Amino acid sequence: MVPHLTTALTGPLLDLEKRFLDASTAVEQWFRVQWLEHTPPFYCSVDLRNSGFKLAPVDTNLFPGGFNNLNPAFLPLCIQAAMAAIEKICPEAKHILIVPESHTRNQFYLQNVAQLALILHHSGLNVRIGTLLPEITAPTRLELPHGAHLTLEPLVRRGGRLGLADFDPCSILLNNDLSAGVPDILKGLHEQFVIPPLHAGWVTRRKSRHFAAYAEVARSFAATLGIDPWLLNPDFDVCGEINFQERRGEECLASKADGLLARIRLKYREYGVSENPFVIVKADAGTYGMGIMTVRDASEVIGLNRKQRKKMAVVKEGLEVSEVIIQEGVHTFETVDAGVAEPVVYMIDRYVIGGFYRVHTARRRDENLNAPGMRFKPLAFDTACSLPDSGTNPDAPPNRFFAYGVIARLALLAASLELERSAPEG
Amino acid sequence: MVPHLTTALTGPLLDLEKRFLDASTAVEQWFRVQWLEHTPPFYCSVDLRNSGFKLAPVDTNLFPGGFNNLNPAFLPLCIQAAMAAIEKICPEAKHILIVPESHTRNQFYLQNVAQLALILHHSGLNVRIGTLLPEITAPTRLELPHGAHLTLEPLVRRGGRLGLADFDPCSILLNNDLSAGVPDILKGLHEQFVIPPLHAGWVTRRKSRHFAAYAEVARSFAATLGIDPWLLNPDFDVCGEINFQERRGEECLASKADGLLARIRLKYREYGVSENPFVIVKADAGTYGMGIMTVRDASEVIGLNRKQRKKMAVVKEGLEVSEVIIQEGVHTFETVDAGVAEPVVYMIDRYVIGGFYRVHTARRRDENLNAPGMRFKPLAFDTACSLPDSGTNPDAPPNRFFAYGVIARLALLAASLELERSAPEG
Repeated sequence: MVPHLTTALTGPLLDLEKRFLDASTAVEQWFRVQWLEHTPPFYCSVDLRNSGFKLAPVDTNLFPGGFNNLNPAFLPLCIQAAMAAIEKICPEAKHILIVPESHTRNQFYLQNVAQLALILHHSGLNVRIGTLLPEITAPTRLELPHGAHLTLEPLVRRGGRLGLADFDPCSILLNNDLSAGVPDILKGLHEQFVIPPLHAGWVTRRKSRHFAAYAEVARSFAATLGIDPWLLNPDFDVCGEINFQERRGEECLASKADGLLARIRLKYREYGVSENPFVIVKADAGTYGMGIMTVRDASEVIGLNRKQRKKMAVVKEGLEVSEVIIQEGVHTFETVDAGVAEPVVYMIDRYVIGGFYRVHTARRRDENLNAPGMRFKPLAFDTACSLPDSGTNPDAPPNRFFAYGVIARLALLAASLELERSAPEG
Repeated sequence: MVPHLTTALTGPLLDLEKRFLDASTAVEQWFRVQWLEHTPPFYCSVDLRNSGFKLAPVDTNLFPGGFNNLNPAFLPLCIQAAMAAIEKICPEAKHILIVPESHTRNQFYLQNVAQLALILHHSGLNVRIGTLLPEITAPTRLELPHGAHLTLEPLVRRGGRLGLADFDPCSILLNNDLSAGVPDILKGLHEQFVIPPLHAGWVTRRKSRHFAAYAEVARSFAATLGIDPWLLNPDFDVCGEINFQERRGEECLASKADGLLARIRLKYREYGVSENPFVIVKADAGTYGMGIMTVRDASEVIGLNRKQRKKMAVVKEGLEVSEVIIQEGVHTFETVDAGVAEPVVYMIDRYVIGGFYRVHTARRRDENLNAPGMRFKPLAFDTACSLPDSGTNPDAPPNRFFAYGVIARLALLAASLELERSAPEG
């Protein structure tokens, strides 16, 4: 089943998908040339929103969970992509250690880790899971649904190397976004590959840097295809020095939100879009959809009540919000059984290996679907993203998935630029 | 559906499959290290035979047909592998020209060419088909089943470049095994990539060189796994200077066949195999299963009658047989509905991307299944070759397919060695 795309407009986006379709060879060739200059991160997932008149990434995750939500038929594609990635990073490797998130024993997240371990195992590595959780002091077997299981083991640091008591890996795969900072045990591992690098964690990363890189990438790509980059690119602005608790920075937020809403309104007029514009205010660093606010009028950010301020003030692991990104909101016009559906696309190395929809019945189409405590129903993409079919409608599922894969790869390329630029010297 | 493996023995091969399963990480790591030293051909198919006590390649095709016989579910895997191959060969490329076989307007073969064109198109290239057929003097559209079609166009040579009237490709993909020799129009294309290289054609190639390289590869691989290489490696010998029409070389053939049969008999005794040994006599250069003879006793090659001699004397395109390979026969113990089934595994770059069984009801298990005029029913592999499952029996389909993928990749590696060694100087 594929979500229904409900939009009164048949204009810009159908045009966009059609342009992608007609130019699919030029699109692939453009990416090939980009990958000569830039190295993609090991893996990545991108949340997209499809408003019917605009198709854009809203979040790029460099430590993706949710591999368990992908179509099992795509497992060989994941394995092959992981093989290609490993060949480039550490062809002689035998052992890899996954360091997962510590904050959760959420069964869905653990299934994601198990799926990741399975992919790496089939791509030809011995895989074990080392946890940062201090209470795990001996190998601990966790039972998962369908008879699966996962063994978490305590990390052991030996000089410049990290491993387990009886396991000395060549590479460390982080599935932990380091929201709580870089733990000492992960610092200075000069003898091992740490994938992705530590500066991909939220201590260093800023959404604004990612979307600035994305804007560049979108401009270059759009120029190649002769389209308006706005159709792919969510506009944004930033405010530093915010303190929600002490009500500092509200004016900055209000004036930036106002400016952004005005810019969006102009674009909506240009394209004859009758929807109400909105912006999303969120922490510039951090993840998991805490501290996210939908704003339809700048006045909404002035005089927040205590509950709202508290919600905005911290994100995951107690990281405090002081820098904020204000991002153009993109409506979600895809629905399944009256539920709003947001596509998430997965990549390993430069290859799109599948995706799924987050389907949520209790949310509006201008709200964030990846919010705390949010229960979504995953709906795996039923076909691959590499099979555009010019014999069918531009918005037929294979073509829509192809377009999603293109936008997701633009975000992947932006992440490569972002990581290059934020890499520590030396 | 997966063919039934009928064998009285549960010994060596189950052991072999179990060893592959247990050592799957070591197997992949071994391949990764090999590919650091050697470059796989762009594509390759390998005919395997599974006797229950021995699993071995019997033919390695560097210009594979039959892509149309693969499971359509594996198309994304083909595309991704082709993307990886193109990135390495010609990342900046936009245009590729396929040069198919000229000898046939066989609908099945043309569907293979169409499928190959589709794979390359989806991997991001403009693909057109240039034919060596002199009667094609203008673009000619051929209708294929299911509403598909294929346009053959006349080749145009311009100095050091080959193309079509309005098409100047960066690469030429040969799907033509050059049995008739290298046409002048393909010679000296120094400004374009010719894939695979011309010396992969049957003018230069010798099966004995391939299987000599395979024996090396099998020895090294078997040593890593601590197994007897004979379990993977078909023994062989050669006779040069054969002339079937003039009855020259019969004695060489008889004595070599006798020696080989004796060696096989010894091995059968060692492993308690009660089957009758046999050898296959075939042209050392050439393909398409013409000029192939099953020999169970050396006396059979003495005093061939006129019909037998005529059959052995020429292979495809009238190429004359003067060098002959005598290869250990491997029984086929896989059956579908009482038909003998021979697996064929397909690879693009270093990746196994699927396979199918040739199923033939009118053939015996010690006969060649790829003979002239032979009608086989293709039966696509229903799962990928990258999903060994140690939780099931060693001969459960995912594990059997994994083993097939391993052996096919050994043959692929042998082909890489063979091409390195036969490359023209300079």
